[in-house]
Amino acid sequence: MSIITLTTDYGLKDHFVGSLKGKILTEFPEATIIDISHDIDAFNIAETSYIIGAAYSSFPKGTVHLIGVDIERNRETQHIAMQWNDQYFICADNGVLSILTQKIIPQKIVAINIHDRLHSDATDLDVFVKVACHLAKGGLLNVIGKEITSIKDVTELQATVLDNQIKGNVIYIDHYGNVVTNISKNLFLETGKGRPYEITFGRTYELGPIRNKKIYPIKTILSKYSDIILDIYSVKDREGEKLAIFNETGFLEIAVFRSNPKTVGSASSLLGLNYYDTVIIEFKN
Amino acid sequence: MSIITLTTDYGLKDHFVGSLKGKILTEFPEATIIDISHDIDAFNIAETSYIIGAAYSSFPKGTVHLIGVDIERNRETQHIAMQWNDQYFICADNGVLSILTQKIIPQKIVAINIHDRLHSDATDLDVFVKVACHLAKGGLLNVIGKEITSIKDVTELQATVLDNQIKGNVIYIDHYGNVVTNISKNLFLETGKGRPYEITFGRTYELGPIRNKKIYPIKTILSKYSDIILDIYSVKDREGEKLAIFNETGFLEIAVFRSNPKTVGSASSLLGLNYYDTVIIEFKN
Amino acid sequence: MSIITLTTDYGLKDHFVGSLKGKILTEFPEATIIDISHDIDAFNIAETSYIIGAAYSSFPKGTVHLIGVDIERNRETQHIAMQWNDQYFICADNGVLSILTQKIIPQKIVAINIHDRLHSDATDLDVFVKVACHLAKGGLLNVIGKEITSIKDVTELQATVLDNQIKGNVIYIDHYGNVVTNISKNLFLETGKGRPYEITFGRTYELGPIRNKKIYPIKTILSKYSDIILDIYSVKDREGEKLAIFNETGFLEIAVFRSNPKTVGSASSLLGLNYYDTVIIEFKN
Repeated sequence: MSIITLTTDYGLKDHFVGSLKGKILTEFPEATIIDISHDIDAFNIAETSYIIGAAYSSFPKGTVHLIGVDIERNRETQHIAMQWNDQYFICADNGVLSILTQKIIPQKIVAINIHDRLHSDATDLDVFVKVACHLAKGGLLNVIGKEITSIKDVTELQATVLDNQIKGNVIYIDHYGNVVTNISKNLFLETGKGRPYEITFGRTYELGPIRNKKIYPIKTILSKYSDIILDIYSVKDREGEKLAIFNETGFLEIAVFRSNPKTVGSASSLLGLNYYDTVIIEFKN
Repeated sequence: MSIITLTTDYGLKDHFVGSLKGKILTEFPEATIIDISHDIDAFNIAETSYIIGAAYSSFPKGTVHLIGVDIERNRETQHIAMQWNDQYFICADNGVLSILTQKIIPQKIVAINIHDRLHSDATDLDVFVKVACHLAKGGLLNVIGKEITSIKDVTELQATVLDNQIKGNVIYIDHYGNVVTNISKNLFLETGKGRPYEITFGRTYELGPIRNKKIYPIKTILSKYSDIILDIYSVKDREGEKLAIFNETGFLEIAVFRSNPKTVGSASSLLGLNYYDTVIIEFKN
Repeated sequence: MSIITLTTDYGLKDHFVGSLKGKILTEFPEATIIDISHDIDAFNIAETSYIIGAAYSSFPKGTVHLIGVDIERNRETQHIAMQWNDQYFICADNGVLSILTQKIIPQKIVAINIHDRLHSDATDLDVFVKVACHLAKGGLLNVIGKEITSIKDVTELQATVLDNQIKGNVIYIDHYGNVVTNISKNLFLETGKGRPYEITFGRTYELGPIRNKKIYPIKTILSKYSDIILDIYSVKDREGEKLAIFNETGFLEIAVFRSNPKTVGSASSLLGLNYYDTVIIEFKN
C-alpha cells in the first residue's frame, strides 16, 4: 500500500482538490489518497505545521505527505522533500516543517530539482504530484533533488522558559473551539519537575466592572476530557467547565467540557482566547 | 471488499478525520473507507441517529459503520457493537442506534471488552478502530465483546398517535433547508387507513398583524419532488411552493420546491420550522 | 483502474454523498470514487459547468463524471450521457455541459433510456449510478441510451466581441475570492492580435465622494501569480495588489496577490466584483 496524504488551503468548494487527486491517479493509479485537511487558513504556516505534526503519527511508515500551502516557488523559496521518522514530506521551504524538526532530526532533506524535466507549463503543484508519486512508488530522494542540510524554521511556534515560568501561545483553535498552545508535555515535565503550578491566560485576572466574572487559574492538567467528572458530579453538572489537558499531539490544550461553538460556546469564545494569545504556566516551590 | 463508513462530529478542518483514516489503514490496509458525515452537530445523538438510519441501506451486507459522536466511555456509558440487518455498527451506548432498532430487531449486540488488551494510552477512538478493522476483516463479535440484550433508546425520536392525530417533531434539517420529521410512512399508512388528512405545523394558523401571510395546511403528500408540477404549470411557476413527501428514508419531509437557504430561502426559514418543532397530521373521517 | 468522479450540490453535512458512494460500491466494488465538489451553489448550472470544465483535464481517459446538480427528469428535461475527449459525462440535459461542448465536439451523446429497466422506486440518482458503473466497467453508451445529436446550451456562459472590445462576465468566485470570467485565452489572442489593452470592471472608474480610491485598469495579464513580484519588490510589498492571469482552465481571472476572504479581503470583496458582473478588455491600436 502507498498512501499519499493531502493538506492544503484549497477549500472544498473549488475543483482544485479533485483535480489534484486526478493528477495523482493519472501518474500512479494504485495510490491511496487520504485528505488530512483542505480548510487550513489561507497561507497560514503555523496552522499547517500544527496539523501535520498532529496527523503524521497515525500513518504507517513510508507514507508521503503532500503539503499544498503557500507553495509558490520564487527566488526566496525553493521546493523541498524531507524524509523524517520514516515518512516523507513535500512542501515549499517556508517553515511548515518546524514542529516536526523540533522533535526529531530529519533523515534526509533535498531541494527538489526536477522542474526542468517537466513540461513547460507545469505548475508548482504538478512538481509536488510528480515527487509524491515517485516517493510513494518507493523512489529515492536523490533522484528528484539535491541534498541540503538546513531548512527554514518558524520561531513563533516555540514556547519559552523564564525562571519558574513557561510562556506559550495559542497556535491552533480546533473545530470544537478548543485552544491548542505550543507548550509541549515534555517542556512541562522538564521545567516543572513535579512542582505545583497555575495556568493563567487572557482574561484570567480580569475583574473589572464590565465582566465581573473572574476566570480562576487552572491548577490541574487532566489526562483525558472525562476525568473532569468526579465522583459526586454527573456529566450534566460539568458541562461548560474549563479544563486543561495534554492532547494527543502532546501539546497543552485549554478546553471547555462538552463545548459547542455554535450553541453554548467554546474555550475560544468563553475564555476569550484567540490565535497568538499568551498562555502562562507558573510553577510554585 | 470491506467497507468501513465514518460518521462523526469532528468537522473537516482539523486533522482528526485524516488521522482516523490513517489508523484504520495502518491496521487494515485493504479497507475501503467512506465518509458519511463529519458535520454532525456536536454531541447531537438525534441527528446522528437520523443520518445513520438514512445512510445504511445504500451499503452492501457486511459494511461496518463507525459512529464517532459522543464516544467517551465512562461509568454511565459503555462501548457497543451491533450486528443489524447484516451490517455492523460501532458506537457508545448513548441511544444513537434508536432509529435502527425501532425498525428491525438487532441480530446481536455486544459490550466491547477489549480495552485492557490495547496499549495503555489507547483512546476511545483507537478501540473503535480496532473493532471496526476486526469486523471488516470478517471477525466475530464475540471475540471483541460480551453479548448484551438491551441498549439505550432515545424516546424523543418517536412520533405519537392520539385519536385521529399523529404528532411528530422535526429531527433533521438538511443542506437544502428541507425539514425531516420523525413521522414514518408506515405509521402514516397504519393510522390513516386511506382517509383524507391535513398536515399543519408551526406558523400554519398564524394570521396576526405582523405576518399576514397565512400558511395553508398541506393536503397531499407527494411521491416525489417534481410531482408538484401539474399539467398547466411550468417549473418556474412552482418555485418556492411548499410540499410534503415521504423521503428516501421513509420519513415525512416538508420541503420548498427548488429552495436555496442562501438565496430564496428554504422550508426551515420560510415556514419557520426548526429542530424539535411539532408537525401534526390530522385525519378526517 | 476505473474512476468515477462526483460533482453535486448535496453539501457534506447530509448522508447523500455517503449514500451515493455506497450505491456505487454496491454496484461496482472496484470503482475509484473521487469527489470534485459537493458545494456547488444549489441548482447553479453555470457554476457546475465551470467546475466540470476546470476539472476534467486532470483525469485520465475513460474517467466517468457523474454530475448531480438539478437532475430531476421531467417532461422538459431528459437524462443524458456524453462521450467527449475520451471521457464520460452523465447529467440532466440542463446546459451543464456547455463549457465543454463549446471547446470540442462530443464524440457521442445518448438520451438515457434504462429507467423502465430499474426497480419501480429507483430515483433519478439511481439511474445515474447504474449508468456510471456501466460505463466505468467499460460498457457502451448504446446499451443505456438512444443516440441524440444536440443538447441544451447555456448562452450566458459566452463572452462577446464588439469592435475592439471583449465583454465578459464573472461566472465563478473561488475559495480565495478570486474572480473567474468567461473570457478565454483563445478569444483574447484571436481578438487582440498582440495589441495593447486595458481591463476594466465594476468600480474601475468610480471616483465619487464615498469611495475616493480609484481602481486603475489592469494593463498586463500575468502568466502566473508570483510574476507580480518584480526585481525591487519583496513578497510582502506586493500583498494586496490586484492582478489578472489566465488561470489553469484558460479563463481570465482577476485576483488579489495573497488575498484571504476572511481577513485582508479578496478580489471579490476588495474590487466589488460579484457573479454576473461585467469585465471588459479594450484593445488599443
